[in-house]
Formats: sequence, C-alpha cells, structure tokens
Amino acid sequence: MPELAPTLAVVGGGQLARMMAQPAIALGLPLRLLAEAEGVSAAQVIPDQVVGDHRDLATLREVTAGCSVVTFDHEHVPTEHLHALEADGIAVRPGPDALVHAQDKGVMRERLAELGVPCPRNAIVTEAADVEAFGLPCVLKTTRGGYDGKGVWFVDGDDWRDTCAEAFAAAREAGVRILAEERVDFRRELSALVARSPSGQAAAYPVVASTQRDGICHEVVAPAPDLDPDLAASAQQVALRIAGELGVTGVLAVELFETTDGRVLVNELAMRPHNTGHWTQDGAVTSQFENHLRAVMDLPLGSPAPRARWTVMVNILGGPNPSVGRLYDGFPHAMARDPHLRVHLYGKELRPGRKVGHVNAYGDDLEDCLERARHAAAWFRGDLGNESE
Amino acid sequence: MPELAPTLAVVGGGQLARMMAQPAIALGLPLRLLAEAEGVSAAQVIPDQVVGDHRDLATLREVTAGCSVVTFDHEHVPTEHLHALEADGIAVRPGPDALVHAQDKGVMRERLAELGVPCPRNAIVTEAADVEAFGLPCVLKTTRGGYDGKGVWFVDGDDWRDTCAEAFAAAREAGVRILAEERVDFRRELSALVARSPSGQAAAYPVVASTQRDGICHEVVAPAPDLDPDLAASAQQVALRIAGELGVTGVLAVELFETTDGRVLVNELAMRPHNTGHWTQDGAVTSQFENHLRAVMDLPLGSPAPRARWTVMVNILGGPNPSVGRLYDGFPHAMARDPHLRVHLYGKELRPGRKVGHVNAYGDDLEDCLERARHAAAWFRGDLGNESE
Repeated sequence: MPELAPTLAVVGGGQLARMMAQPAIALGLPLRLLAEAEGVSAAQVIPDQVVGDHRDLATLREVTAGCSVVTFDHEHVPTEHLHALEADGIAVRPGPDALVHAQDKGVMRERLAELGVPCPRNAIVTEAADVEAFGLPCVLKTTRGGYDGKGVWFVDGDDWRDTCAEAFAAAREAGVRILAEERVDFRRELSALVARSPSGQAAAYPVVASTQRDGICHEVVAPAPDLDPDLAASAQQVALRIAGELGVTGVLAVELFETTDGRVLVNELAMRPHNTGHWTQDGAVTSQFENHLRAVMDLPLGSPAPRARWTVMVNILGGPNPSVGRLYDGFPHAMARDPHLRVHLYGKELRPGRKVGHVNAYGDDLEDCLERARHAAAWFRGDLGNESE
Repeated sequence: MPELAPTLAVVGGGQLARMMAQPAIALGLPLRLLAEAEGVSAAQVIPDQVVGDHRDLATLREVTAGCSVVTFDHEHVPTEHLHALEADGIAVRPGPDALVHAQDKGVMRERLAELGVPCPRNAIVTEAADVEAFGLPCVLKTTRGGYDGKGVWFVDGDDWRDTCAEAFAAAREAGVRILAEERVDFRRELSALVARSPSGQAAAYPVVASTQRDGICHEVVAPAPDLDPDLAASAQQVALRIAGELGVTGVLAVELFETTDGRVLVNELAMRPHNTGHWTQDGAVTSQFENHLRAVMDLPLGSPAPRARWTVMVNILGGPNPSVGRLYDGFPHAMARDPHLRVHLYGKELRPGRKVGHVNAYGDDLEDCLERARHAAAWFRGDLGNESE
C-alpha cells in the first residue's frame, strides 16, 4: 500500500500518548510508539510500536526511522539525544531548546525573568543559609525530575533545617539543583493552554481553574468561574508569548497562580497535552490531543472554542481502598445515573494515588456539572461503596 | 497484568471497526480484531488482531477465544457459524436470529409484514413473468449480498426483459433469490438509528435525512429538516419496535422512504453502526460507535441527544481524477478554511467510488453547515482543483 500520510513517532507510552491515538485515527495519521514496557497504556491501542528505553539513542533512532517528526508523552528524553535526532534530520517537536524550559525549572525561571513574565520570587539555593537568606516560609523544588508533588518541599516551622537537608540530599543524589520560591498567597490555580505550530500559528483555549490534592491535579473547571476578563486575556497572552518566545511546537500548558491581589504568576510549564486540558476532549471543538497532533505536523490548528457553557473534569485516582474491583465494574451505575457523562480510562491498574482515568461533565449549570463529575469520579475511586464482593 | 475489562471481539477490519476503536480507547475496553488482510482500515489502529477469513469457523473461534462477546463490522458471517459460536458460549451481538433480517431482504420483508410495519409493496419473483405480474416499473434486488447500489436493478422501459434476465442470472450465480419492490414515489430518504442492549434498554437518535448518489450514501443532515414531528416520532417508534421485536443488540439503522403522501416506509435494515449515523461522532452526546460498544457489552447506553442545532455529514469518495494526491495533502486548505471542520479518514487508498472518509460540520445555520461540509468533501475528492503537482 502506498503511504497515505506521514508517520508520527511518539516517545512514551502513557495516557497522553493513548489519548493522542483517538484523533490520530480520525486524521488517518499513523503513529509509531516508543513504549517503556509491553502493554502500557498507549501500547494497548497503537499497533506500530517499539518497546525500549527513551534514554537510549539507538532506541530513539529505531522508533523515528522513516518518520519526519517525533513528539512526546513526557519530558524525560535527554536533551543531547534530541539534538542528535535533529542532526539526523528529524523534526523534534517540541524542540530541545524549547523543551529544556519544561525540563529544568532553573532555566525556565531565568528565561521568564528575561522576558519580564511575572513569576513568584525565586532563587537557586545551594545550602540552608541561602534558604534562610531567601526568607521563610518558602518552597524548595528540584530543578529537574519533579512531578505530581514529587521533588517539592515546603519549608517552614522549627524543622526547616531538616527539610532543607532532605531537599539538598535528594538534589545531590539526582544531580540537580534546588530552586527556592516564595509561597504565593494565591486565590486559586489557573491554567492557560495553547497550541503552537512551527509556522507560528497559535490557538488559545479558555483559561481554566484547577484544584490540586496532595500536589496532583484533581479537578478542572472550564472556563475558570468568575475570572476577570482582563486577567483571563492576560493569562492567555502570557501563554501565547511564552510559546512564541521559546519556540514551542505542540501544546504548551502554563500553570498559573491567581494571587489574592489580582495578578497571575507563572507556576509551571508543560510542553505536551496536559491534565488541565483533558476537558477539551468533550468540551471544545478541537481537543488538545488533536491540536497537539496538528501542531507538531504543522497542519492548521482546529478551533479551541468551548462547546458548552461549562465543562468539569475530575481525575480518577486509585484510592486506598483495596477492595475496589475493576474500574469497568463501576460502569453500570455511573453510566445509568448520568447518560451524559463522558468517561476516559487509561488501561492502568489501580494503585493508590495513581491517575487511572478521568470523567468530563458539561452543561449549562456549573453546580450540576460539578456534582455529576465528582460523584462519578468518587464512585470509580470506591469512595461511595463501589466495592467488589 | 490482571484483566482490567473484558475483551470484545470484532469481526471485520473496515472503517466501522476502525471508528469503534476510538470510544473503546476512552472506555478502556480492549478490542480483538478479525481483519480480512494485513493493514486494512481497522487493523491499522487495533493492536490485538487475527488476520483471516470470516467465513472460516476455526478462524472465528481463534479470534473469539477468551472473549465473552463478539460483534461485527459487517453482516457477512455465515449464520451457521454464528450459531456455532453461540453454542460455544460466546454472546453473538447482534445474534444470528436478528442478523438474518439484515442479511436477507426476503426474510426481512416477510417479518416486517408480520409485524405490520409499513414497507414498499414487494414479492419474491423467480422469472420475468412474475415481474410482469408484479407490475412495472419496479426494483429488483438480490435478497442477499447487495450493498451500495450493487445487486439492485431498476426494471422499466423496452429492455425490461433483458434487465430481468441479468438479475436472475446474477441471483442464480450467487445462489440467492430476487425480491421485486414497487418504485416508491418518495420525497426523500430518512434514517432512524437506535441502539438496543440485551437487557432491553434502547436509545433513539434524531431522525436524519440522507441523500444517495449512484446508490451510495452521499450526505446526511441531522435532524431531517422540516420533518413533521409526528412522522419523526413514528419513524423512531418503527425503529425501536423492529429492534425490540427482532431482538437486535447494538446499533440498528432503519433506512426509510418519506413518501410524497406523508408516510414512512422501511427500505433497508442494518445491524451495526451505519453511514447515516456518522454525524453522531461530532453532533451527538454519545456517538453511534460508543453506543454500539455499550449496547453489545450490555452497559447502560449514553444519551443520543444532539449537541448542535444542525450537523451535516458528507462522505469523501475516491473520485475519477487520477491526479489527486493523498487525502493528507488536502488538510492544509480544508483545515485552514474551516477550523471547526471535523475530518474522519479511514486509512484507505483512493479508488473511484470507494468511501475513504467523511467530514462533519455542525452549527446553528444549516446552509452554512452544508456549504462547509460539501466544500471540504469536494476538496478532498479533488473536484475543486486539489491536484498533486
């Protein structure tokens, strides 16, 4: 059969790659996956796959052979390998010079300061005295490798020296630096998601409000309720500016603090489809996953316009209840109670704290959407008596 | 890894199976595919697959091994094999006793007559004299094996005896019967699509209007414009009644004639996701593909409610223009012109008259949706100068 479309290489077999597979089917875009192990989330749904280590250049070359573009499920591919792939003639999207800002918080803070983008006050620290000089209370973060609450320490109270010691020890062991940041007095967390293509077209989704639990994204409301329109526009402009200045290709998620005094400060950057954009699968004309594919393939972007007044996303996390059965067994109640509910599962085993799926509920009434999505997620999690017998 | 969900076997590797894969990803429902050849439409997107012949019982047993349910991309599996699978303890959905009504037009007409469902006047004919007695003009159809305009003859004019001879010869060769039907004086064609689960829950989609070209579905408007509400309700009731009386599980499409004197007559039945339901992928809360999966797995059905005032689907068919390039090369113009356009490609090579994809356009203004969808389909087809260089 002649080639119907170029093949896109995707590194990483998690749920983000899995959810890219859905619009790839519609677009007739073949994906070739590098999965970290057999049967992982995306490997269940993408036939053309290589199983191997994304830190191994030969494996990366194997999966990208014959592909003109490579993109990512995560940000963990070593920068030198990305440069090597570029030297091979593969378009790496997002490219290493952009991606480093999502990989290294120190580099990110430095660059955003140059651009004059508002951030929490921050400094690289190397010992407890630096932290004391920076001022307590504060937050310490490893510059690389942290995610979902890992690699983050809150420094305060009598044991602050112990906390610092723990953080510096972890950083030494991982060979990374420690960034100190002020504890921002924030009203809530926002997220501004944009997609940007190599030719420079960009699309900005409505700014959403996100709620964290134990450092993990728990709930997203799109659009952010009662958000000042000027602040919303300014958040979108910050995200578009960062995407443009850093040369991001694909989806960029800018996590923000909305401060109690009415400013937005950049918290984190992610250069891939992001948990705060999962609502777009059912709540926007074009999902973040489709626009990520379009962007990295340098195709015109789809409309990021919302399709409903409100869309609420709630994550399904593995709970502490060991007697919960399969998520599949939660379907009868969840689907019968709410025929409008949209369920997205990742093909993952339940483990405490692990993201295994999410639900979306959309409609005209925010309270109704919140109740429906929260009920369904709690039901799947086993918090409502959904135990196997 | 422990089993997270039951595996659903799907027989047939066409675009319908391909489009089932999208909601299967979201539901975390593993599919196992029987593909007629390597690399066919659905085989490109479903990793767990067997390549083989759906007329071979051993192959059917191989693909259903360990599955509790089997469903279909097409209606061509021999009835005796379906009974054998049932005897093996596999739930065949739709079951052979229902499916025969979609496989054999003679059986279908007989059963619908028993149920008192309005149909065009019809009779089984065995020679030209029968056709003359039935009355000209009329339509001859093979009772089995016809689709997309194949196995259909319009009998009229001076050469009517030659047409009859051709039809009877084709029927003899295929070992099937010939059904004569009156040529209905119809205003337009409608389609009533329902999903029904084994426990008897059913969901009815809005009745749509469909336009054929050369016997192939060309365009669908949802809902059917200016349709009398009583007639719409009666079409939905006919479809629900047929689904219930015949014991259909999964999606049932009832193709109807809306007569010039304001009645609906049943034209054809299909027991699988249907071309007249492709609009639901972007225009309904739950797509026909997801509701087919839910129905055959006996899960509660999702809402069939429309998400937009109008949704228009136009098929992309391979045109006669040999200089048209890849469909993929049509993306830049089609996507840039209409950021709200929804494109669905099947991973098929372009051949004249072959369905290779479709587009959906939804919105508040029917004329606008029609213009957008028609333009995009014509562009992909190469009718607007989309030639490769």
